Amino acid sequence: MTDRPNRQILLAERPSGKLEEAHFKTIDSIIGEPGPGELLVRTVLLSIDPANRAWMQGRTYREQLGAGEVMAGGALCEVVAANDAPISPGSIVWAEPGWQQYAIVPANRVLPVTVGGPLSHHMSVLGITGLTAYFGVLNVGRPQNGETFVVSAAAGATGSVAGQIARIQGARVVGVTGSEDKNRMLERDLRFDATVNHRSEKLRDDLAAAGPKGIDVYFDNVGGRVLEAVLPLMRTHGRIVCCGAVSQYDSAAPVPGPAGVPGQLIVKRLRMEGFLVSDFIGDWAKAQEQLAAWVAAGEIKVLEDVVEGLESAPRALVGILAGDNVGKRMVRVAPDPA
Amino acid sequence: MTDRPNRQILLAERPSGKLEEAHFKTIDSIIGEPGPGELLVRTVLLSIDPANRAWMQGRTYREQLGAGEVMAGGALCEVVAANDAPISPGSIVWAEPGWQQYAIVPANRVLPVTVGGPLSHHMSVLGITGLTAYFGVLNVGRPQNGETFVVSAAAGATGSVAGQIARIQGARVVGVTGSEDKNRMLERDLRFDATVNHRSEKLRDDLAAAGPKGIDVYFDNVGGRVLEAVLPLMRTHGRIVCCGAVSQYDSAAPVPGPAGVPGQLIVKRLRMEGFLVSDFIGDWAKAQEQLAAWVAAGEIKVLEDVVEGLESAPRALVGILAGDNVGKRMVRVAPDPA
Repeated sequence: MTDRPNRQILLAERPSGKLEEAHFKTIDSIIGEPGPGELLVRTVLLSIDPANRAWMQGRTYREQLGAGEVMAGGALCEVVAANDAPISPGSIVWAEPGWQQYAIVPANRVLPVTVGGPLSHHMSVLGITGLTAYFGVLNVGRPQNGETFVVSAAAGATGSVAGQIARIQGARVVGVTGSEDKNRMLERDLRFDATVNHRSEKLRDDLAAAGPKGIDVYFDNVGGRVLEAVLPLMRTHGRIVCCGAVSQYDSAAPVPGPAGVPGQLIVKRLRMEGFLVSDFIGDWAKAQEQLAAWVAAGEIKVLEDVVEGLESAPRALVGILAGDNVGKRMVRVAPDPA
Repeated sequence: MTDRPNRQILLAERPSGKLEEAHFKTIDSIIGEPGPGELLVRTVLLSIDPANRAWMQGRTYREQLGAGEVMAGGALCEVVAANDAPISPGSIVWAEPGWQQYAIVPANRVLPVTVGGPLSHHMSVLGITGLTAYFGVLNVGRPQNGETFVVSAAAGATGSVAGQIARIQGARVVGVTGSEDKNRMLERDLRFDATVNHRSEKLRDDLAAAGPKGIDVYFDNVGGRVLEAVLPLMRTHGRIVCCGAVSQYDSAAPVPGPAGVPGQLIVKRLRMEGFLVSDFIGDWAKAQEQLAAWVAAGEIKVLEDVVEGLESAPRALVGILAGDNVGKRMVRVAPDPA
């Protein structure tokens, strides 16, 4: 084995306002050999998520990203070499290589993937975002038959799956996006009952019209203005699933919270609850089995948005923060292994 | 029976800003006889609560109060006469007579009280505020042994009981008030582990020092600035009990919510939940039995703040919104029945 050329994308500068492609820098370097207990992996499909931007803002559930570091990110990878580790070369793993062609990662920090169906499904509906939708809907929001379920960023990777799972539970599903095209697609292809455009000047009225009985569960991917508009429309004993706050990631300034907190929570006895998919890791396999069955039965339609080439990653991330994706965005860094 | 003179206090005008005594008006009228299924009751102890002010702001869990109406309020009352109702004259009931000496109320809207110990305890520790503390701590916040429990308006009727129940569960209890005198009293008489003054300019630092391991449960009676300061200090899987928002009641303008919602909820997987004591009405008797046992054992010290005379009610309410009470504030309208 010889040292390999390795293209890397660094976070050159921490953004102080909106993220731009100029905050990143592409360099060519050399990757070495894995040490004991380590793997050399090749990045195949790199996940692009709004949360990538949040990591630059401060400490979240991981350390803040610093300038000059390889941009962080998860990916489906092929194992190229293993040093004293119980994983065979050629295996597919979920790992955190960051934005680069190759990475050396500890073997105990990767998750083996047993590929069934298209590899990309293991990043979308069977990956982190699909699992997030699954546990957020079924373990946190728990929509019941006949209840009204609203989801924001509804055409996104998590939102599109969350809405479909809620529909399978018998809920009336209302999707919120920033685009009429996305809304038509959700109603036509994903069988959402209604949709609302969050750019509307009468957002609250539109939400009230889309859910005339009030809202039982709000699956919140965005925070901010949509969350504030939803609060007065919640029904007694409603639940707000705090999954993401993409409206607040792409800025340096702390934003005020939604009016109605805590007043509406008291009066309506609402539960507002955050969660991370990693809290449910013991149930992932069971969830993936169920999700795959729903896909096979045509109950869940999978939306994927694949961008070609590692060099496209900065543009793909800047774009996802503006909502230009439909479904799970990923960057293809290498072809699927044979 | 003849018609009785009845002094009443009306909400003369809905406040547009801070509530003042001038918003009320005292009149003398005559009370008639109860119709079928109704009771004539005499107000003995009238409850004064921050929520009284919230009822003027808009629809809450009850209709908004209108100008010219008798000011609404709950009270311990003596039944003077019953018309075709299964309650004997001389009985003590919890009713909603409003701010007046006598009222005619539907018999099916009162709760009989079996008096044990001082009557006032049925308004404080065994009344709505004590029960609110009980269910908020044990059913919503659920502090565990060794956890850190923070309560705001800690010298108030609900907060003082909530803190003591959490202490009984083995939690480290931190009280937040706006007065050094109250804080010393909480530490000395109620065995709080630490206290913080919410008027401090370094409120967050003070809270961090009082709960050095972070906060597991925050029992929120105030909303606003204290809630915002607490959020970044919450530990993973922490719980915020949304019980009241007294910082926001005495104003006409909608206030922004706390920064950190929903961001902190996601990152820390927090649960923020509102509740009303009426949701637990089936368990009230059991709770009252437990509370009375804790009082008898000296585990809960009861704080009461009795103001004399119906005419004092406006001042008592204006004052409670400024935090001038210690413990459960009530107005004595008539002597305890013999």
